Amino acid sequence: MATQQILINGQWISSTGSNTFQATNPATAETLEPLYPVSPWNEIEAAIQAASDASKQMRGWSGERFAAFLDSYAEEIEKRTEALVETAHLETGYPESPRLRDGELPRTTNQLRQAATHAREGSWAMPTIDTATGISSLFGPIGPVTVFGPNNFPFAFNSIAGGDFAAAVAAGNPVIAKGHSSHPGTTQIFAEAADTAAKATNMPTGFVQLIYRTSHEDGCRLVSHPLMGAIGYTGGRSAGLTIKAAADKAGKPVYLELSSINPVFVLPEALNERSADIAEEFKGSCLMGTGQFCTNPGLVILKAGASADTFIQQVTQKFEEAPAGILLSKGGQTGLEAGIAAIEAAGATLITGGTASDGPGFSYANTLLKVSGNQFLANPSSLQEEAFGNSALFVIAESDEELAEIAEYLEGNLTGCIYSHTDGNDDTLYDQIAPVLRQKVGRLLNDKMPTGVAVSPAMNHGGPFPSTGHPVFTSVGIPAAIHRFSMLQCYDNVRPHRLPEALKPQNPNSKLWRYIDGMYTTDDYSS
Amino acid sequence: MATQQILINGQWISSTGSNTFQATNPATAETLEPLYPVSPWNEIEAAIQAASDASKQMRGWSGERFAAFLDSYAEEIEKRTEALVETAHLETGYPESPRLRDGELPRTTNQLRQAATHAREGSWAMPTIDTATGISSLFGPIGPVTVFGPNNFPFAFNSIAGGDFAAAVAAGNPVIAKGHSSHPGTTQIFAEAADTAAKATNMPTGFVQLIYRTSHEDGCRLVSHPLMGAIGYTGGRSAGLTIKAAADKAGKPVYLELSSINPVFVLPEALNERSADIAEEFKGSCLMGTGQFCTNPGLVILKAGASADTFIQQVTQKFEEAPAGILLSKGGQTGLEAGIAAIEAAGATLITGGTASDGPGFSYANTLLKVSGNQFLANPSSLQEEAFGNSALFVIAESDEELAEIAEYLEGNLTGCIYSHTDGNDDTLYDQIAPVLRQKVGRLLNDKMPTGVAVSPAMNHGGPFPSTGHPVFTSVGIPAAIHRFSMLQCYDNVRPHRLPEALKPQNPNSKLWRYIDGMYTTDDYSS
Repeated sequence: MATQQILINGQWISSTGSNTFQATNPATAETLEPLYPVSPWNEIEAAIQAASDASKQMRGWSGERFAAFLDSYAEEIEKRTEALVETAHLETGYPESPRLRDGELPRTTNQLRQAATHAREGSWAMPTIDTATGISSLFGPIGPVTVFGPNNFPFAFNSIAGGDFAAAVAAGNPVIAKGHSSHPGTTQIFAEAADTAAKATNMPTGFVQLIYRTSHEDGCRLVSHPLMGAIGYTGGRSAGLTIKAAADKAGKPVYLELSSINPVFVLPEALNERSADIAEEFKGSCLMGTGQFCTNPGLVILKAGASADTFIQQVTQKFEEAPAGILLSKGGQTGLEAGIAAIEAAGATLITGGTASDGPGFSYANTLLKVSGNQFLANPSSLQEEAFGNSALFVIAESDEELAEIAEYLEGNLTGCIYSHTDGNDDTLYDQIAPVLRQKVGRLLNDKMPTGVAVSPAMNHGGPFPSTGHPVFTSVGIPAAIHRFSMLQCYDNVRPHRLPEALKPQNPNSKLWRYIDGMYTTDDYSS
Repeated sequence: MATQQILINGQWISSTGSNTFQATNPATAETLEPLYPVSPWNEIEAAIQAASDASKQMRGWSGERFAAFLDSYAEEIEKRTEALVETAHLETGYPESPRLRDGELPRTTNQLRQAATHAREGSWAMPTIDTATGISSLFGPIGPVTVFGPNNFPFAFNSIAGGDFAAAVAAGNPVIAKGHSSHPGTTQIFAEAADTAAKATNMPTGFVQLIYRTSHEDGCRLVSHPLMGAIGYTGGRSAGLTIKAAADKAGKPVYLELSSINPVFVLPEALNERSADIAEEFKGSCLMGTGQFCTNPGLVILKAGASADTFIQQVTQKFEEAPAGILLSKGGQTGLEAGIAAIEAAGATLITGGTASDGPGFSYANTLLKVSGNQFLANPSSLQEEAFGNSALFVIAESDEELAEIAEYLEGNLTGCIYSHTDGNDDTLYDQIAPVLRQKVGRLLNDKMPTGVAVSPAMNHGGPFPSTGHPVFTSVGIPAAIHRFSMLQCYDNVRPHRLPEALKPQNPNSKLWRYIDGMYTTDDYSS
């Protein structure tokens, strides 16, 4: 059985490494056919060198060049829809439709096209001009970017097609994609499409490259290499923190999206008003994709009372009626099992679920646990362990004060939700909790579950540590996500004809927003 | 002799620690009178708790509250001009005039007032509104900020009055100032002014606090404390990297401004055209403040030839004629000595200087060294050791290609300059060097020395590692500098009356710039 090739410096080549791995169909636990290589250091180093060379070749290129690639790439992806959907279904267990074909794939091409639009317009670079001093600045490319994609979005966060990839390219950088080991075939098809688009749009050979897997040690060498510009990582906390430590030590900007349990406060009068509706919304959000969303609501905080009891009963019934979905991998199943065991060990009681499901594939019963507010406050760290998948923990507070105190003990999360009574009957309590929760989360929601992450300029798919590595940045939402892969570049007394087009007196495309002498404008300026 | 008090939670209190230190007059090497305490951990922890309480009290406060404090503080500083100038002169050896009274002090109050203006207007927070999805976001305060000020700007970068302080407050945060040990008396006067202004403007007691010194271990505990929001540090590389490692491990955003040698390329035809002028500019910039500027030009790259020889002779003569200034401390003198010795050990030859000066104070002869381009490329790391003070290293390249190659081997720096012929006779060479240098520095200059750092919205006083900790951020230039002490806060489906004023349909002050549906505007919007 032939080992699949890696994409280095514009060529599909055979790896020189002897270690290989295979993907597994999580619905059947069967190993999938092709072998994929674990790349040894010399290959990784060749990729870094090629990316660095590409970066040099592209210095000063206009956004139009990158936009042309991104648009062409979106088209190449669409041509491969059937193969992508089929392969990702086999490798992830996600339904072909609507999830893969109608949800994640259009989202992915949409992200690439949005990135193209913004690369073309250029406003993401925030050109800032001070005509009195002759000083101007903008954000420019940072250099080679390595993207580590997660297992749970084989398309929209794929290392060679997802949001980090699109943002890194829109900023003008080459990308080294480190594919996720659970969906190598999907990543391979994207890489073929990217390579085709890169050649069609005359990009340098080291512009898009793919390696499937490295040793942990080589992963750390990769992110800390002197020629590396920045790193995007989405995935588990433990591996992410190892990557972060290596990158931090070398002074390389590293953007991580790690675990998040996404607390949801459901206030008492909201339950009195519409408990059944909220239970249905919660079930939908928590079990969607078998709970394998970064923004999966894993912690629900209620105030003790009859309405909380009813709500828990309603949710429990829905969790018991819903079929247990497929988990992405054997590791996902054992990780969920271990997470639930840890939460139980920390004092929580099982309401339903708590066992691996029968059947050939990887699956675990839809699981609910509960703990008192008092217990939570006694052990807040262990009770915030992420159990990634189709499970959630209820925390039952005895009083309004305890609800607010629980909010104070939350770790950094991507999102936080508060459901409250429509006519304001919960507003006093809302006003106690919301300011606390605000500081703990990147996105605060009202009366809405967190799993939908719109690709909006106002989106923040980010949050305080440990949900991400830096609370200023978002990984979803263009143009903001592009900044991560840039550096601030100032020009002081530089002769006008030598300035980048975006900083010259004439607005290069009449759509570019610039901050000129304290005003945002698309006008030209006088030098 | 009484030990001076620290400012914790709105009270001037005596430290419980038994260790003390004293400042030294660098012009005479005499110890200055008052004793200042080294604070033990319990005091630092009390400051953190008070800052955290202040942070909670200030949740949701308008920018106006912080602007009022900043304006009041600037006035309180002006009332203490004489004491500040006199004390800083004694503690730093800097001339009272023009440096302290006419340069650095007005710059400091100007920074505070600019921060006030921007806190009031609010545009720094970049409110972003997507009316179609009901999602909006802005940058909000991050929480308690610790600021470590450097020794070389007792006013403009002071931990309790400088740029980091102003930015942290403008973002809505309390500050714990860790004063620099070489100018504790100056810092004390600022803290008195800040405390007065904080009380006059009804800020919480833990809003501004001052400790003079901690053990290294406690400094690391401080920056990694769970209640800490972010850290600003300006100073030496070694201590800075220790702080960075501690903060990074705890996931705390840390903004460092470390060493920088600020390379200057002087191209051959520029020398043929105006060698004497450039020599004079270089001498002024390199010896200003006895070379103790973050942006001091410490590396000059020339192309071998008669014009380079002449230029070096001209600079040498000026360096020999100029009096050696006072260095900030004994440590500054021994550090400069060690830095020069290291550069010599790496192969450089001494042209002039190279010895400590006679006299009672801390001083070192104006020093020049040189090395061939070949030698530099053989040992680029050692030859980029910072010798902080009144010294510079010439690198003499044999060819245009070698000039460009030297640029490729430069570390990250705050600034990089290129002098070229006025009529374009150096332009071919400029075009080879500039794109390389661009990626290595935060601010690229033409025909201008780097030591002036204008407080402009377009300024970047930042750059790639190791000159700073993150190339996206600047520590000078408002509003950009404010972002460092913030987090991105998104609102999704939040009921309109609960949104921050800046995100509501009506523009709160008619001057606030917002990015609404892809357009920057100061208009209201319809919900």
